[in-house]
Amino acid sequence: MNFLIVYAHPEPTSFNGALKDVAVQELERLGHKVVVSDLYRMGWKATLGPEDFDGDRANPSFLDLSKEQEHAFANASHAAEVKAEQAKVDAADFVLFQFPVWWFSMPAVLKGWVDRVFSRGFAYSAGRKYETGHFKGKRAMLSLTTGTASTLYEPNGIDGDLHHVLWPIHNGILAYTGFTVLPPFAAWMPGRVSNEEREGYLNVFSQRLQDIEKTEPLFFHPWNDYDDTQRLKPGVVARSGVQWNPMSGQSFEASADAFAHSQKRG
Amino acid sequence: MNFLIVYAHPEPTSFNGALKDVAVQELERLGHKVVVSDLYRMGWKATLGPEDFDGDRANPSFLDLSKEQEHAFANASHAAEVKAEQAKVDAADFVLFQFPVWWFSMPAVLKGWVDRVFSRGFAYSAGRKYETGHFKGKRAMLSLTTGTASTLYEPNGIDGDLHHVLWPIHNGILAYTGFTVLPPFAAWMPGRVSNEEREGYLNVFSQRLQDIEKTEPLFFHPWNDYDDTQRLKPGVVARSGVQWNPMSGQSFEASADAFAHSQKRG
Repeated sequence: MNFLIVYAHPEPTSFNGALKDVAVQELERLGHKVVVSDLYRMGWKATLGPEDFDGDRANPSFLDLSKEQEHAFANASHAAEVKAEQAKVDAADFVLFQFPVWWFSMPAVLKGWVDRVFSRGFAYSAGRKYETGHFKGKRAMLSLTTGTASTLYEPNGIDGDLHHVLWPIHNGILAYTGFTVLPPFAAWMPGRVSNEEREGYLNVFSQRLQDIEKTEPLFFHPWNDYDDTQRLKPGVVARSGVQWNPMSGQSFEASADAFAHSQKRG
Repeated sequence: MNFLIVYAHPEPTSFNGALKDVAVQELERLGHKVVVSDLYRMGWKATLGPEDFDGDRANPSFLDLSKEQEHAFANASHAAEVKAEQAKVDAADFVLFQFPVWWFSMPAVLKGWVDRVFSRGFAYSAGRKYETGHFKGKRAMLSLTTGTASTLYEPNGIDGDLHHVLWPIHNGILAYTGFTVLPPFAAWMPGRVSNEEREGYLNVFSQRLQDIEKTEPLFFHPWNDYDDTQRLKPGVVARSGVQWNPMSGQSFEASADAFAHSQKRG
């Protein structure tokens, strides 16, 4: 398979760097082809703006980003660095995102990679989202580090369940564009544990990469479960672990059971 | 009161621009002092990296961002533009964030404002988070535009409940640093509705700004509800609308009732 690793950490000798290095080494050992976008080293510009469409604007007097992205994609006139990243995504069967959780989300440089590279036309378009998304057939997975312990990311933890925290990424970026999404790998506060525990994380991560073919992806409701307003049809029990059925009287236990059966935790 | 509006849209004549303009006009009419950080116009650099600590590194050979942020804050050696934004936050009683929802989250330029400005030392530190956060006494509110209809952001909608989608921002950025968080204002797909509906959004937004003093903030569990592992203590019913009690057998209806009583929807 062709792997693209999108890596966002400014310090090469950080634990994020170690996870990225282990991924490259392990995936190549398994016979895969690996390309790395090292966003800090590349000096990736995070901000989506008019510079992405220099010289060939659909409408030079009003910046409608969706329209300009569609126009640029149709005319191959995107900024060169955007086109280069889009070519990497095109060639990839699997995209692995390696980043530290900053403020319950991705570092801005990685968010900006998504804002600019996953442009309208390239990553989604009218009627081509989720199951009919442009990236259908590709898989994706988040590998992240946290600054706090795993208990904080439990359903009754102060950070909220990890799947809730990552829902905007898992559902909103990856499932939305058609990826099959594998459960995330999380290294809990690697900056505050022992060397042995850090070694343990690297070993578990290697194993996760070896087990990709037999890993059950995250569950997202199929199109057919939704009505015209894009809400779950009456009678469809929410089992994504995030959505719920406010009017059904669905008990929490039923919801938790459905969740446990549909998702494996990373 | 002193208001800071952090505004992230590249097109001045966009609906985000109109919402920002209405906020400035309405807040000044009410006698408030308003400062705007127009991130696109300022050319705000989104990426947190070594440039924020130029010339005065705590450790020049290994970039530990938390340590460098603490060091820079203690020594007033942050990059000048970071210090300028921190001074604006210091002076503000109320911070209003105006942005389009891109990929279920903030545009990268705004995420990068948070990454860089809400630095360790300035925005949080050991033992000073949430109720004891640095920004205790200040209020914050999100004002956002979406590309899709409100039904998609209901609990059983394909995007998931708006409060789930915004939890990483509301809880992870704002409540975490001590802000009292008001319910968000959302203008649903302003690019696809009539001029009358857009006028309606501006009027409702003006009213929201007039009603700030009587607006019930979002509910977050107080410190005292958490045990040493930062999970809700046994017997504490989750009522943030996002967290839940997996082992308690709490029924969904009880959870929904608690949520309805504790939060007003924007």
